[in-house]
Amino acid sequence: MQKVAVIGLGSMGMGIAQSCLRGGLQTHGFDTRPEAVERFAVEGGAPGTLDEVAGAIDTAIIVVLNAQQTEAVLTSLAPQMKAGASVIACVTMPPEFARTMAALCAEHELNYLDAPISGGSIKAAAGQLSIMASGAPEAFAATEPVLDAISEKVFHLGDAPGAGSAMKAVNQLLAGVHIATMAEAMTFGISQGIEPETFMEVIPNCAGSSWMLENRGPHIVNGDYTPHSQINIWPKDLGIVLEIAKAAGFPAPITSVALERYMEAVKMGLGTEDDAAVAKVYAEDADLKLPGTS
Amino acid sequence: MQKVAVIGLGSMGMGIAQSCLRGGLQTHGFDTRPEAVERFAVEGGAPGTLDEVAGAIDTAIIVVLNAQQTEAVLTSLAPQMKAGASVIACVTMPPEFARTMAALCAEHELNYLDAPISGGSIKAAAGQLSIMASGAPEAFAATEPVLDAISEKVFHLGDAPGAGSAMKAVNQLLAGVHIATMAEAMTFGISQGIEPETFMEVIPNCAGSSWMLENRGPHIVNGDYTPHSQINIWPKDLGIVLEIAKAAGFPAPITSVALERYMEAVKMGLGTEDDAAVAKVYAEDADLKLPGTS
Repeated sequence: MQKVAVIGLGSMGMGIAQSCLRGGLQTHGFDTRPEAVERFAVEGGAPGTLDEVAGAIDTAIIVVLNAQQTEAVLTSLAPQMKAGASVIACVTMPPEFARTMAALCAEHELNYLDAPISGGSIKAAAGQLSIMASGAPEAFAATEPVLDAISEKVFHLGDAPGAGSAMKAVNQLLAGVHIATMAEAMTFGISQGIEPETFMEVIPNCAGSSWMLENRGPHIVNGDYTPHSQINIWPKDLGIVLEIAKAAGFPAPITSVALERYMEAVKMGLGTEDDAAVAKVYAEDADLKLPGTS
Repeated sequence: MQKVAVIGLGSMGMGIAQSCLRGGLQTHGFDTRPEAVERFAVEGGAPGTLDEVAGAIDTAIIVVLNAQQTEAVLTSLAPQMKAGASVIACVTMPPEFARTMAALCAEHELNYLDAPISGGSIKAAAGQLSIMASGAPEAFAATEPVLDAISEKVFHLGDAPGAGSAMKAVNQLLAGVHIATMAEAMTFGISQGIEPETFMEVIPNCAGSSWMLENRGPHIVNGDYTPHSQINIWPKDLGIVLEIAKAAGFPAPITSVALERYMEAVKMGLGTEDDAAVAKVYAEDADLKLPGTS
């Protein structure tokens, strides 16, 4: 039985840890928030501090907030792990940063899988994530039982760390723009007398639909901005997209404008609301009323 | 048996006319291009000029290029039609213009259905369009056999002409932005070493997908820009969106940037290519190579 450590028990990490448990893996869960660790222990998480178990675990899954936290975790953890153990790095980061993390792990004879995830917290909890993975064949082989437990689809994007992160950046460009575009279209509809509810009855059956529109649109219809995924994610993720685009001499004007919309939302104090709340920026601009808001 | 006239035998109108024939309706097809009229006659289109048959038809379906052509057709046709006959107006136009056309038809005691369509040329030919329709209950009742023949779904958006056109504008905002965003993401992927083919294997399974991405992405993978829907459509349709947005005091920054991308494509001489060719603007900007291009 593989011994697994999930580092970061946020909305994605907690679901991943639960899926590992359900998949029959001995799973430790770690987080800077003691209440998250305790909650997971109650659900069947294995005991011990990270320092205590680091030498025994076969696979560490890193689901912290950003590249800097990933680096901090691995700088401390990698030297403590046994040779031949594996790291699955799920955080969205620039491909160049993923290559640096892979090199750090290689110094300690650890397998490294560049493995950003897609699917949201509900799919994480169901063990049905999509994983955009790249790494050496040994890294795929060693982590197979873990990947099986947490994902529905694993895309094999080659041997080189960085390819997974590049595909994740492409996906985030699309996802981030599509949420903001859904908000632009739905509020534009309101300005033309179309209720959000009617919008959601019609558009998912038409050529204007997107995965994000169908997923986030109902949040606006219901006026429910409980964060499944926060506004704050997008300045970070679209920032990564624009950073690596700039380094490649690639102008991305639609992404740039979408990023500005999210930054406007953060400025309005909406950073910790669900990302569908970017619609409030449009409502404010054009003096429109969204469902369930005053 | 209803007598139907389809005015405008382009990629959408020809499919609609064929669907009417298949639905058992006596169908006349008209176009400024004699070869289109002849082609439809060979397929079973009823004979006669528009002036000859105008007084006998029960329903005229207008599928010309724009609002101005719709007005030209109706100014000449409406006075010749019999009282109680119906007009189905499928062209994308501002809601205010649709209300003016409805008033023109009302003067001649004609039913008017504000009925923009969605689905593309393949669905038009299959009789499986989505129709965003508004108009008086009598207009819906009188045109029911025709709507049955040409559509899979008819959205009833109320009694007032203009509501259908408003929903179409919302759909076009989304569709136009999604095509340009697909192009931005796919070429950004190329800049990061991701082949368009790999992009299309992964993204349709992830949160970044859209209807347009799945529909138009393969055109870029195959390097095939045979126009299913031309670049030229988008400066027109997104122009309508921004025109009515402006009139409503609604800023639509993402739509504005997408429109600029299509205008750039037109400037590059790509106006009559498939709208997926907007990717060539990005390839030119960042000096990237698309499949099948030199």
